[in-house]
Amino acid sequence: MTTVTVEASKKYNVLIGAGLLEKAGELAAKVITPCTAAVVTDDTVDALYFETLRKSLEKTGYTVVKFTIPHGEMSKNTENYVAILNFLAESHLTRSDVIFALGGGVVGDLAGFASASFLRGVRLVQIPTTLLSAVDSSVGGKTAINLDSGKNLAGAFYQPDLVVCDTNCLETLPKEQISNGMAEVIKYGFIRDGEFLDILQQGSPDWENVIARCVSIKRDIVNADEFDTGERQLLNFGHTLAHAVEKCSNYEIYHGAAVAVGMVMISRACAKKGICGEEILNRVIELNKLYGLPAAAEFTAEELFNAVLSDKKRSGGKINLVVPEKMGKCVLMSLDMASAKELLALGV
Amino acid sequence: MTTVTVEASKKYNVLIGAGLLEKAGELAAKVITPCTAAVVTDDTVDALYFETLRKSLEKTGYTVVKFTIPHGEMSKNTENYVAILNFLAESHLTRSDVIFALGGGVVGDLAGFASASFLRGVRLVQIPTTLLSAVDSSVGGKTAINLDSGKNLAGAFYQPDLVVCDTNCLETLPKEQISNGMAEVIKYGFIRDGEFLDILQQGSPDWENVIARCVSIKRDIVNADEFDTGERQLLNFGHTLAHAVEKCSNYEIYHGAAVAVGMVMISRACAKKGICGEEILNRVIELNKLYGLPAAAEFTAEELFNAVLSDKKRSGGKINLVVPEKMGKCVLMSLDMASAKELLALGV
Repeated sequence: MTTVTVEASKKYNVLIGAGLLEKAGELAAKVITPCTAAVVTDDTVDALYFETLRKSLEKTGYTVVKFTIPHGEMSKNTENYVAILNFLAESHLTRSDVIFALGGGVVGDLAGFASASFLRGVRLVQIPTTLLSAVDSSVGGKTAINLDSGKNLAGAFYQPDLVVCDTNCLETLPKEQISNGMAEVIKYGFIRDGEFLDILQQGSPDWENVIARCVSIKRDIVNADEFDTGERQLLNFGHTLAHAVEKCSNYEIYHGAAVAVGMVMISRACAKKGICGEEILNRVIELNKLYGLPAAAEFTAEELFNAVLSDKKRSGGKINLVVPEKMGKCVLMSLDMASAKELLALGV
Repeated sequence: MTTVTVEASKKYNVLIGAGLLEKAGELAAKVITPCTAAVVTDDTVDALYFETLRKSLEKTGYTVVKFTIPHGEMSKNTENYVAILNFLAESHLTRSDVIFALGGGVVGDLAGFASASFLRGVRLVQIPTTLLSAVDSSVGGKTAINLDSGKNLAGAFYQPDLVVCDTNCLETLPKEQISNGMAEVIKYGFIRDGEFLDILQQGSPDWENVIARCVSIKRDIVNADEFDTGERQLLNFGHTLAHAVEKCSNYEIYHGAAVAVGMVMISRACAKKGICGEEILNRVIELNKLYGLPAAAEFTAEELFNAVLSDKKRSGGKINLVVPEKMGKCVLMSLDMASAKELLALGV
């Protein structure tokens, strides 16, 4: 088992290893005295892993109640958020109790926002069951729900009390979900860790090490900027164009696939403009290919740029882009709209 | 105009004075560069004060959009919360924009929670238009909505960027709403400020001074305990029994009236038990009478204690009661359930 300690507004551990779900009760009991544990999960994960978690929690003295949502991004809505709050109230959950988020990013975001707001904050244990949620959404404290007019438009910054990643859970993931997560894994290498890129290029990743490395990088970046006002924007490498690709595809292209394409496009643009060398672009394309990720999408520069314009990450008349400078190092670049459009057009 | 500066996780000013609504635009512009201002209000306040606020904001360069909810406690629900979030999204509000909460506690709580959660936090200006919200809910950062199974069960701790109290707004308040606020005003005197009790006893309160004094007391207590884990419980003087009275009356008794009765009951219990002198009880009754507040409610000790038991403010097998010690000083007392029941029974 690997432990990564995060010191945000709250200090907590991310535990990573094979078979941790069976020990979740005793691991949790080290930081949260057994009490009522409200498990939020989705129907797919419920069938695969809930019983293991329930047994482990009950053996350690927790009283378990459960709320299950349908799987998929559509569930990350206001109706399920309110339904979870009502469930917690009807279960008489108090500030001394705890919520367990068992599932991928949708469950983590929904249950996380419910934890942040029920009684103005109850304790939270994240148990991510996908590669994407393990490396990305379980660290950083961003919780959110979607509104009718856009994704992640409401939520809270809220830190968990513990994160437990059982790498065995990745075995039941469909191949495209592994690819989906690998796009973010590759992203971490390009932002901060050239050596990690070499390891990834060897294939057959050791999940415990991969997750621990990504979590550590994210932890370091978020530590410097918990409330997302500067440095943290580095985590958006590939994401400005990824959001545009997702939007242009009506969200039929997976987030990870879109991030992969986004990284290719911004790297191509930067290579052409001389901001970085050609080898960065080639490495992005190679790694994408190795992990089943695409290198291009069928949208024009005009279509993509219009989608970028409607993105919420703009501030004023400027746009902040994350650009690769050398292998394992990205930097922020603030451009006016005309310059951004010109640069991005080079990448498409 | 009186300025009270609050230094919570955010530093902000509470401005109190006659005619401030007409100057709200220029006062806000000192802390928030003109942008889109989303005003949340209720139908009663909309008819009385929105036009004044709109003109003032537009004159200073703000673009104004408005969302109006029906007046009354019933509006503090999940449906209106979600409706406000959707309205903000459809109005393309960004993190550079601001929400104005124009109204009483219901509007302040709803708009406050929406501000805390939309885009994980946008700026907030509170413009309380009732005495109760001016002295109580606009300071301390507690925002909330009601769920089907109870009041204030979801929300966030979230500080405003500015609070503007126009004392002229109190002129349109029905008499019982003034009484409602006065119960909290009297409470502040008993918690912390014996001299203030003498001033209140003279009648004809100067609203600017009264509000400034209450806000300062609340500021000092909250400063010591922003996230409500200890000292802040002093603000619950009279409230344990008040919540019980409200519950037993099916919420037909006003909050302020219930607080008035709660202060009488706990003071009587403490006087009988020798925790404080008889003069405290007499002073509570006198001040209640002077400001149109009751001194008793028609529920038995058994009924009230059962309602206390279902209150969320318990922790473990103990209950924390706020008891008067001398004139202008309350302290916390932690009692087991049997002792609490015995003490409270003395007061009914």
